Amino acid sequence: MSEDDLIALFAPRLPVTDAEVLGSGDDAAVVSVDGDLVVSTDMAVQDHDFRMEWSTGADVGWRVAMQNLADIDAMGAVPTALEVALAMPRDTEVEWVLSFADGLREACEPHGVGVVGGDLSGAAQIVVAVTALGETHGTDPVTRADAAPGDVIAVAGPLGAAAAGLAQLEQGTRVAPAAIDLFLRPQPRIGAGLEAALHGATAMMDLSDGLARDGARIARASEVRLAVESALVPVHEAASFTAQTMGVDALAWALGGGEDHHMVACFPRESAVPAGWVIVGVVEDGSGLTVDGAAPTVSGWDHFA
Amino acid sequence: MSEDDLIALFAPRLPVTDAEVLGSGDDAAVVSVDGDLVVSTDMAVQDHDFRMEWSTGADVGWRVAMQNLADIDAMGAVPTALEVALAMPRDTEVEWVLSFADGLREACEPHGVGVVGGDLSGAAQIVVAVTALGETHGTDPVTRADAAPGDVIAVAGPLGAAAAGLAQLEQGTRVAPAAIDLFLRPQPRIGAGLEAALHGATAMMDLSDGLARDGARIARASEVRLAVESALVPVHEAASFTAQTMGVDALAWALGGGEDHHMVACFPRESAVPAGWVIVGVVEDGSGLTVDGAAPTVSGWDHFA
Repeated sequence: MSEDDLIALFAPRLPVTDAEVLGSGDDAAVVSVDGDLVVSTDMAVQDHDFRMEWSTGADVGWRVAMQNLADIDAMGAVPTALEVALAMPRDTEVEWVLSFADGLREACEPHGVGVVGGDLSGAAQIVVAVTALGETHGTDPVTRADAAPGDVIAVAGPLGAAAAGLAQLEQGTRVAPAAIDLFLRPQPRIGAGLEAALHGATAMMDLSDGLARDGARIARASEVRLAVESALVPVHEAASFTAQTMGVDALAWALGGGEDHHMVACFPRESAVPAGWVIVGVVEDGSGLTVDGAAPTVSGWDHFA
Repeated sequence: MSEDDLIALFAPRLPVTDAEVLGSGDDAAVVSVDGDLVVSTDMAVQDHDFRMEWSTGADVGWRVAMQNLADIDAMGAVPTALEVALAMPRDTEVEWVLSFADGLREACEPHGVGVVGGDLSGAAQIVVAVTALGETHGTDPVTRADAAPGDVIAVAGPLGAAAAGLAQLEQGTRVAPAAIDLFLRPQPRIGAGLEAALHGATAMMDLSDGLARDGARIARASEVRLAVESALVPVHEAASFTAQTMGVDALAWALGGGEDHHMVACFPRESAVPAGWVIVGVVEDGSGLTVDGAAPTVSGWDHFA
């Protein structure tokens, strides 16, 4: 099948956006932007970030779209459009490619986000690079750098499900399918980031490498200490159930597991934390991230390194 | 070397832009945009689009940047920023990666374009995906779709050099190094596209697949015929010299060779064509592209298919 033929099948399945002034088919797309542009890029590489035996094309499309939407949301901005570059072996099934488009659409359509352009190419393995575009809506971008002592730390959703899903896939068990689904198709609540920005969040990011490591990134950027209390960390019930069945500690997944993509943010006071967010600790003078007052022991989530 | 260590070496070599409000290091970058955003994505894949034995890292960085800048210029827009995704094998030399950054900078810096963000990942081969961002400056984007009968067709630079360079590399000869250099580092005049837009260009694109095929794309999008006169087509002197030495027809390279990345545009009348552009034909009622009144014979540039 020629590239033109493939594009003719692929393009109609892609999500569209009201922000599109001119879509694909020319040298470049044109997108209307209100205010500053927020832009982020994330790749997904076969055998590095996904496995063909675990993920459908739609799962890969969903995940790479959602990771990028979460990055825009994590700035307190509103995603509008994606550019999608897809390199793949010549023998990649057309059905896989169309399923990939479906996953992009399923992730993007509820948020009014469209794929406005991209590129297709050959490669030895599937490599996807997505660039997400967004715009701020009345707030400054929320970086990682402005958390201050006295702030509270909160997360926008329960943690550990993606790690529990990965553990099941790696062990070939299926005790909590909901966790597997959340590993294959992360479900951060897109819009939580804008909500946090409107509530005065001082620092924010989405959790792609786990609360312990990502929280330490906020601590470093803001030159503060993030003091997390383990008893406050919301553990996803599918992670708890999986951990119980496997005889492991679900908290290790909640603190150390990546890929949940929920927002973690700091707020200047408890009363600023939006409904539905869970406070997990406080910001203090100092550096790094502590759990119950101590440096987190590596053992709990070392296997996610 | 860790990803953080690599980024610490890589990032300072990248070009910067005045449009950057917030650079890399957070979930997303923030770029100021004046008016509509013009966005384009192009990939370069090892062994598909470049070979390690022919191209340095800087050559690859230059080429993928320049392809993307040309796409933005081809809309009559001004490029401002790039997002760069780079996937590579673990054993890729750090020097290659830093050289790649140097090539990005060398291509971008003269145009005030910066790399504002991106992603690094592992892969079986080097895969680069670049998304270029730009903005219109007082003109509407120039698409491929508005050429009209009576327009003249013009190109912004001499053609065939990249094809002549590729031919030399494939044959292991080096009769015209300037052509090899232009294949490895295409030199479209960035800004020619904006110039054409300001002169009222009706349709435009950059020549990545050769005048014959790219011109046919304008013909299809505009529902007209592009009638090219071969005697008018400017052949790059390094292509002429290479062709003479090899005993082949330089015109085939000028019409059929890709990768020159010069602009081709249609203008409503001869007097609208900017200085330095060369008129190569006229737009007529009909469809497709003709050379000297006939469909171009495939034989001349079949080997570029």
